[in-house]
Amino acid sequence: MASNKQVILRDYVTGFPKESDLVFNDATVDLSVPAGSNKVLVKNLFLSCDPYMRIRMGKPDPSAAALAQPFKPGQPIYGYGVSKVIESGHPDYTKGDLLWGIVGWEEYSVITLTPYSHFKILHTDVPLSYYTGLLGMAGVTAYSRKGETVFVSAASGAVGQLVGQLAKIMGCYVVGSAGSNEKVELLKNKFGFDEAFNYKEEQDLNAALKRCFPEGIDIYFENVGGKMLDAVLLNMKLNGRIAVCGMISQYNLEEQEGVRNLSTVIYKRVRLQGFVVSDYYDKYSKFLEFVLPYIREGKITYVEDVAEGLEKGPSALIGLFHGKNVGKQLIVVARE
Amino acid sequence: MASNKQVILRDYVTGFPKESDLVFNDATVDLSVPAGSNKVLVKNLFLSCDPYMRIRMGKPDPSAAALAQPFKPGQPIYGYGVSKVIESGHPDYTKGDLLWGIVGWEEYSVITLTPYSHFKILHTDVPLSYYTGLLGMAGVTAYSRKGETVFVSAASGAVGQLVGQLAKIMGCYVVGSAGSNEKVELLKNKFGFDEAFNYKEEQDLNAALKRCFPEGIDIYFENVGGKMLDAVLLNMKLNGRIAVCGMISQYNLEEQEGVRNLSTVIYKRVRLQGFVVSDYYDKYSKFLEFVLPYIREGKITYVEDVAEGLEKGPSALIGLFHGKNVGKQLIVVARE
Repeated sequence: MASNKQVILRDYVTGFPKESDLVFNDATVDLSVPAGSNKVLVKNLFLSCDPYMRIRMGKPDPSAAALAQPFKPGQPIYGYGVSKVIESGHPDYTKGDLLWGIVGWEEYSVITLTPYSHFKILHTDVPLSYYTGLLGMAGVTAYSRKGETVFVSAASGAVGQLVGQLAKIMGCYVVGSAGSNEKVELLKNKFGFDEAFNYKEEQDLNAALKRCFPEGIDIYFENVGGKMLDAVLLNMKLNGRIAVCGMISQYNLEEQEGVRNLSTVIYKRVRLQGFVVSDYYDKYSKFLEFVLPYIREGKITYVEDVAEGLEKGPSALIGLFHGKNVGKQLIVVARE
Repeated sequence: MASNKQVILRDYVTGFPKESDLVFNDATVDLSVPAGSNKVLVKNLFLSCDPYMRIRMGKPDPSAAALAQPFKPGQPIYGYGVSKVIESGHPDYTKGDLLWGIVGWEEYSVITLTPYSHFKILHTDVPLSYYTGLLGMAGVTAYSRKGETVFVSAASGAVGQLVGQLAKIMGCYVVGSAGSNEKVELLKNKFGFDEAFNYKEEQDLNAALKRCFPEGIDIYFENVGGKMLDAVLLNMKLNGRIAVCGMISQYNLEEQEGVRNLSTVIYKRVRLQGFVVSDYYDKYSKFLEFVLPYIREGKITYVEDVAEGLEKGPSALIGLFHGKNVGKQLIVVARE
C-alpha cells in the first residue's frame, strides 16, 4: 500500500469556483493490479487544467448531462494527464510505458482502457508535458485554408496559441485576442500572429475587429463566447465559419449573456459548428505525424504555465477563470 | 403611356412597420421597351409578402448592407412576384410569357434579366400564384433524412408548411409551432404534421418541446429566432442541425433578444447554418421536377392568404409581423 493524495470536489459549484470547493484527501492505493484484470495502474506525472472542467463542476444539467458527465461530490476530479505505467493487466501496456488520457487528480490512478481513451506516448524527444496540451489535441486546423483571415480568442491559451500557429503555417492572416498586454506581446512576438489586441483595453470590440479585419473574418475559432461572439458576428465574411471549441466567459455565470447578433448568420450564410476534440481521436496519429516535425524544427513553439505539486492544483485550475495563466496551465505531480 | 400605381417606402422604418410607412404613387409608364434594349416590360399579376422584406425597410446596416440592399425611401419597394411579359427586348422572352422573380410593387415593371434573376413559368396546370411561394423557393429539404425528428417554427407560413410536408415525404417525424389554434389545426389536419403547438399558449417553450420530442430534435428549421431558438437549443440531439432561414421575431426589435443557450452547441456538436434561397437557384429545375408530381397528385397542399388589389399591399405586408396571415400571404395585382 502507498499513500495517494487526491483532489476532491466538495460540492457542486455555483458561480466562480473557489479554492475551498476543492479539498485534499489522503487516501491509500494498492500498488498492483488484481490478477486477471486488464486495468492499468499508473503514476500521474502531469495534469492539465482546462476550462471545460468548470462545466463538470456544476450541478448536472438535464439537457447536457449525458454528454458532459459532472464530477461527483466527494470523489476526485479528473482530466487529461500524462502518466507512467506501474503495473499493467492490459496486453498493450507494460511497466514503464508512458501514456496520456483521462486520469484522476491524484498521485496514482487505476485506469480502464477503451478505444481512444488513452494514447501511448512513443515520441519522448519533445517535452513530456506537451502531451497535456500541444500534443494532446488534434484536428483543430481542419477549418483553415491558405489566404483566409482567422480570428482566435483566448489566443495565448492552451488551444489558442496552437490554432494561431497552425493557421499561420497554412498561410492564413491570423489575429488573436487575450486579456493582458503581456499575453498580446507573446502573440505577436513569440507565436507570430499578424495582429493581436487586449480585449480588456478595447472600448468597443466591434471597432477592434474592424481595425484588424477591414475585409471581415473568414474563420473564427471560438474559445470565449458572450460579448466577443456578438462582436465577431458583426464582422464575419460571407460564408464564414465559426468553430465553437469553448465559451470560457460563460461557464461561471448563473445566467448566460445573451448573444444578440445571431440573425446576421442568415444573409452572411455563416456556419457555426460545435465540436469536441475526442470525436477526432482517430486522426491523432496523423496529427502527430504532421506536427512533430514542426516542433522539432522549432517552427511551432509552446508556452506552458507550470504549477509544481498536486497541492497547487486547485489554485491553478481556478486561476484559469481569472486569466491568471500565461499559456497552457498544467500541474506537475511528479517528475518521473 | 399607361397609369402605373406604385407602393413607395416613405422613410426608413424603426420598430414595427405601420401602414403609413408605405404610400401610393400614381406614376405613368411607357408600355414599350426602347429599341435595342434587352430589358423586359412586364405586367405584375401576383406579389409575395415575405418577412425578409422588413430587413430591407430598415436603415442601411453597415455590417449587412452589401448583402441585403435596403429599399430606397421615395422609391417603390420590390419583392418576388409573378408577371406576364408585355414587350421584350430579350431573346429568351416573348409577349405573353409568364415569369417569376423580383419586381417592383407596381402594376408594370421594366426588368433587367441576369442569371437566375427570373424564371420562365412553363407549367401552368398548377395555380399561378404558387410561383410566389410553393414553387418559388428551392432546396429547403436538403437537410432531412428518413427517420429524423424535425421541428419547424412559423410552421403554417409560406416556407414552414412546405418544409413540414417535404420532411413528412422524406419519412421524418415532424412537429410545428404557430401562433393561433386555427393554424395549429391546419398543421395537424391539413399538412399532416405529427404534432403541433400554439407557442402563445405554452407557459414554457422548453417543456412544450420536451413533450413533443422526448428524445430530442435532429433538425430545427429556424424561421423565428429569439426565445424559440433558446428553447430549441436545450432540446437538440447530439450532432443536430439548425437551418437558419429567418428570424421574424427579431426584425422589428430595436435591440434583438439575447440567445443564452448557445454554449450547448459545443457538447452537442450542433451545426447552425444560415442560408439564402437564391444560392440554390441552380437547382430550381430539379426542385420543380421533384415537387410538381406531388402537387398534381394532391400529396402536397398549399394554403394561401390572398389580398385583392395593390392597395391592400401595405396592410398585407404589415400583417405578417402580427401573425395575421394564415398561410402564404400574397397580393393579387391583376388576374391576367
